[in-house]
Amino acid sequence: MSKVAVIMGSTSDLPVMQEAIDILKGFDIETEVDIVSAHRTPEKMYDFGKNAHERGISVIIAGAGGAAHLPGMVASLSPLPVIGVPVKSSNSIDGWDSVLSILQMPGGVPVATVALNGAKNAGILAAQIIGSSDKCVRDKVLVYKEGLKAKVIEGAGKVKRS
Amino acid sequence: MSKVAVIMGSTSDLPVMQEAIDILKGFDIETEVDIVSAHRTPEKMYDFGKNAHERGISVIIAGAGGAAHLPGMVASLSPLPVIGVPVKSSNSIDGWDSVLSILQMPGGVPVATVALNGAKNAGILAAQIIGSSDKCVRDKVLVYKEGLKAKVIEGAGKVKRS
Amino acid sequence: MSKVAVIMGSTSDLPVMQEAIDILKGFDIETEVDIVSAHRTPEKMYDFGKNAHERGISVIIAGAGGAAHLPGMVASLSPLPVIGVPVKSSNSIDGWDSVLSILQMPGGVPVATVALNGAKNAGILAAQIIGSSDKCVRDKVLVYKEGLKAKVIEGAGKVKRS
Amino acid sequence: MSKVAVIMGSTSDLPVMQEAIDILKGFDIETEVDIVSAHRTPEKMYDFGKNAHERGISVIIAGAGGAAHLPGMVASLSPLPVIGVPVKSSNSIDGWDSVLSILQMPGGVPVATVALNGAKNAGILAAQIIGSSDKCVRDKVLVYKEGLKAKVIEGAGKVKRS
Amino acid sequence: MSKVAVIMGSTSDLPVMQEAIDILKGFDIETEVDIVSAHRTPEKMYDFGKNAHERGISVIIAGAGGAAHLPGMVASLSPLPVIGVPVKSSNSIDGWDSVLSILQMPGGVPVATVALNGAKNAGILAAQIIGSSDKCVRDKVLVYKEGLKAKVIEGAGKVKRS
Amino acid sequence: MSKVAVIMGSTSDLPVMQEAIDILKGFDIETEVDIVSAHRTPEKMYDFGKNAHERGISVIIAGAGGAAHLPGMVASLSPLPVIGVPVKSSNSIDGWDSVLSILQMPGGVPVATVALNGAKNAGILAAQIIGSSDKCVRDKVLVYKEGLKAKVIEGAGKVKRS
Amino acid sequence: MSKVAVIMGSTSDLPVMQEAIDILKGFDIETEVDIVSAHRTPEKMYDFGKNAHERGISVIIAGAGGAAHLPGMVASLSPLPVIGVPVKSSNSIDGWDSVLSILQMPGGVPVATVALNGAKNAGILAAQIIGSSDKCVRDKVLVYKEGLKAKVIEGAGKVKRS
Amino acid sequence: MSKVAVIMGSTSDLPVMQEAIDILKGFDIETEVDIVSAHRTPEKMYDFGKNAHERGISVIIAGAGGAAHLPGMVASLSPLPVIGVPVKSSNSIDGWDSVLSILQMPGGVPVATVALNGAKNAGILAAQIIGSSDKCVRDKVLVYKEGLKAKVIEGAGKVKRS
Repeated sequence: MSKVAVIMGSTSDLPVMQEAIDILKGFDIETEVDIVSAHRTPEKMYDFGKNAHERGISVIIAGAGGAAHLPGMVASLSPLPVIGVPVKSSNSIDGWDSVLSILQMPGGVPVATVALNGAKNAGILAAQIIGSSDKCVRDKVLVYKEGLKAKVIEGAGKVKRS
Repeated sequence: MSKVAVIMGSTSDLPVMQEAIDILKGFDIETEVDIVSAHRTPEKMYDFGKNAHERGISVIIAGAGGAAHLPGMVASLSPLPVIGVPVKSSNSIDGWDSVLSILQMPGGVPVATVALNGAKNAGILAAQIIGSSDKCVRDKVLVYKEGLKAKVIEGAGKVKRS
Repeated sequence: MSKVAVIMGSTSDLPVMQEAIDILKGFDIETEVDIVSAHRTPEKMYDFGKNAHERGISVIIAGAGGAAHLPGMVASLSPLPVIGVPVKSSNSIDGWDSVLSILQMPGGVPVATVALNGAKNAGILAAQIIGSSDKCVRDKVLVYKEGLKAKVIEGAGKVKRS
Repeated sequence: MSKVAVIMGSTSDLPVMQEAIDILKGFDIETEVDIVSAHRTPEKMYDFGKNAHERGISVIIAGAGGAAHLPGMVASLSPLPVIGVPVKSSNSIDGWDSVLSILQMPGGVPVATVALNGAKNAGILAAQIIGSSDKCVRDKVLVYKEGLKAKVIEGAGKVKRS
Repeated sequence: MSKVAVIMGSTSDLPVMQEAIDILKGFDIETEVDIVSAHRTPEKMYDFGKNAHERGISVIIAGAGGAAHLPGMVASLSPLPVIGVPVKSSNSIDGWDSVLSILQMPGGVPVATVALNGAKNAGILAAQIIGSSDKCVRDKVLVYKEGLKAKVIEGAGKVKRS
Repeated sequence: MSKVAVIMGSTSDLPVMQEAIDILKGFDIETEVDIVSAHRTPEKMYDFGKNAHERGISVIIAGAGGAAHLPGMVASLSPLPVIGVPVKSSNSIDGWDSVLSILQMPGGVPVATVALNGAKNAGILAAQIIGSSDKCVRDKVLVYKEGLKAKVIEGAGKVKRS
Repeated sequence: MSKVAVIMGSTSDLPVMQEAIDILKGFDIETEVDIVSAHRTPEKMYDFGKNAHERGISVIIAGAGGAAHLPGMVASLSPLPVIGVPVKSSNSIDGWDSVLSILQMPGGVPVATVALNGAKNAGILAAQIIGSSDKCVRDKVLVYKEGLKAKVIEGAGKVKRS
Repeated sequence: MSKVAVIMGSTSDLPVMQEAIDILKGFDIETEVDIVSAHRTPEKMYDFGKNAHERGISVIIAGAGGAAHLPGMVASLSPLPVIGVPVKSSNSIDGWDSVLSILQMPGGVPVATVALNGAKNAGILAAQIIGSSDKCVRDKVLVYKEGLKAKVIEGAGKVKRS
């Protein structure tokens, strides 16, 4: 069975990254969570990146803020698809630093970047990636999308009645 | 076998998007190419998005410039992973419009965004996504990465000798 | 009689969009309000866009945040003038994403964009559009402009006396 | 019959603004063209803005670059809908100055802003505004939209055959 | 004797603009204050701009936010030096709109722009302009500069002792 | 008689700054030109700033690019009004660095900033400053403004005839 | 023994700059602290910059906000390495002004710029500079880096247990 | 004797980085040059970073473009001062990506960032760092600064004579 690793540069990223963990739980996808800092634990990052695909992991979600190098460095080390979550950290310049540090990877080493603080979407994207070869997960994605629609319809009803 | 769809909003995006097509060819991944405009052929886009996963497509790559709505709209219609390529079109404001229109998707509907004009990386990411469940493709990704390394080593040799 | 549709991507946009509804009420212009999400209810959006002009609507006001696709997609579907309101949503990058996603439409499909969170101006613009062929509404616009002037004169008086 | 005024701050804006004039000609909409500078001919601008609606004009298109004040000032003087075209002039800071000077109007005085250098869309929007009360023009807009679609389909055919 | 006019687009700009008024008082420079809105009282603005130099005013300070047209429009109407104060108003896009709308004036019509919310500096600049021909005021500027220095020296003393 | 000093950080700024020199010549205002680098000739800058007002100079125009410190440093040293011209130099980040380094001066030390590469406007502003106490120069400014108007009227005539 | 000078433009920068002072204390590096304003005490700055290397100082850390000229001006005056800390001051435009004013120095006069409000890193960088020739300090840097790693490992342990 | 390593992510960075090599030659500082890619040769980067200080290197200059991770990653691995040069590569978003990816490092791991394409300044900064403990190199820096001054004085002479 497919497994997703959710890693982040610092425990201070956890409140943002928790949304990815929660959504994966909602899709019944096995998830492992770890703190891996590109700048403070480069060896741990190296081992993580080199071996993730050997340990049964299918997709990596990596969140980081500021000059966010974790997603790109893990993408350089692993053959797996890496989803990058730019985190708007405290001394960030409005989030632009994390967004550009993750998005603008050079040719050869992609990071699948989602919106600023978009950990929830990172979780859904991981499910879609697994679902691209696993019909059961894809069906859950389709159900999830129906749920999104239902909530909008419900909201629309309230607005019209008011 | 897995298949990737490469779509774009306009024929003027083709020079940029060709890099995705070429890299997928290099990975021997079956690819279909089409022009699908969110703003000028919304019905075609709707049909494409709703049915892609029924037609054996595993991953969608969508490129567009300016207020680039194609990747996000296809992501709203399809359960498949959608990779968005921001294209720096002629009247773009330095590419910021395409980048933000594709990246900043709301919670529930992710687009896996790559760098501005990063169609090559979109192709590699598609291969990685397929490779997350197909060991044969993943091995090609590993080989590709070795090739990247070899080219750098070669360049380093030249620089040192000069 | 002319009618304006005010739609928005999410109920969370309502506090901003309410200003459009209120100003239209002030001009005695019939208004319908709905939640239509480009990304979560694409079919509803399609039906709305395709049929609005058949249902007696003259102008559409569409508000959305982040990668805001609703105004542009509705503009692609409808022959009516579409006014776009960029909403500064919670995870927006300072509003730039909504502004650029709405403003930078490709040639052929305009959106009449107003300021960030400028729903009030969207309402006035809708009145001006109706007033361009309806002298009665135009006269109300002229009266409204006189009111703006009066308030400034009053404020100036207070400042001078202080 | 409805008439559109296309004004601009300088003759150097004409190459950009010509696209608005051409598209209006394509819709058989009567058009008058003038140079009106907010900063160099403020009296002419005042007279233009105050009287346009008395002279049978229904919509004003105003283009300007840099600290572009013409669209907003005309909007302050006229009860008509004013469409603003940010022009990327030579010493502009990448067009941001024109975009923000036109878009970010204060509450009470809207300008219907289109994309940077988006004069073509300004012309189409003017047609849509006229078409909101003139079924004949609206039908032309519908035909125009069909033409956009046809061109994309044709382009798609070429791409597929190649 | 020289006189400075301090005008602003709205009473909501007063808290920022008050710093200009206060500093001018500190220099014993006669000051008049008024609310003049480019967009809501264009006639008042026109009269103000055309006549200020006839009424004994030497320098105009104009503050405005968002698409801030007041400083530039007054500069177009008056032969006097106009100092523009970009005000960071509530729906501003981080102040960029006011800064660029005031700073990026076309060739022929300068506005002496100061920092965002820099009304204090606008007042000092007005004193310097008057002081460029009035030795008495210039001497006050020199004294003021000595005061700035003294405060830094005092602060430095505290930091060193701590 | 009043005299204006036009200084710049490098001879490479001369093509931009020449416009200030030319316009001052047009107003018959005595002008001295010098290269004064804040970073490479700090002592020369210090002497210049400290003594300019003793040498009969009334207004200083200072142009610089990148991290442009010359205008602000001279403003810190001189009691005269200092006009800053942000120059878009070769390795500038689109001119933002020069604009912000000159504009965003701290409270106490204003620089009268003009548009990016706006040396022409710096010259006009210097004339306006001199004209604020010298009726003869102010009348030349009024004549200059009439000339601007005449050129627009002429351009408008050509556009209408075409 | 090596000594570091930590200077800043205003006492209001002290809360940010304190982190540099604290980290240097942690490395047992002698530190002197002073307020030196480029704009308000230019003579003090001149003396400081010209003489620092004669007084046994090895590295200068300079923090400033807005149009931050202190680091660059000191770098122009001193042969020592100057580390610049962009401080996000109250009227800053999101910190961009301080960042660009410090970073974008012209060829010939470098400033070693650290992140916005990155005074802590300025302190570490000063230690690394001293450590580049002083093995004892370099060893402390190595120990410090081990400490960073240990904290991440500890945080990772907590996250995994939770 | 001190030695500087100049590394860069790709041979395409060499034209920019050559300026650092040339200036170091001018200071007679021993220099080694290599291509080390964070994303394509992570192992080589790891070895380089971990061992540089053992091999007699005192300062590392690292240049990279786009999502530029090389300077920050090397800084994470080495106790030496690392100077980062943001390179404006071909698909960069105006250089902002490289600047922010290098500058905005998290607390604990500084990179001494210089201006966009500022390789020349990186070389000078390296000399200053060596000069902070090596009087002979510092004297060369002082001589270099005199040379800068001389060139400005010469340029000033030409401007004055013209």
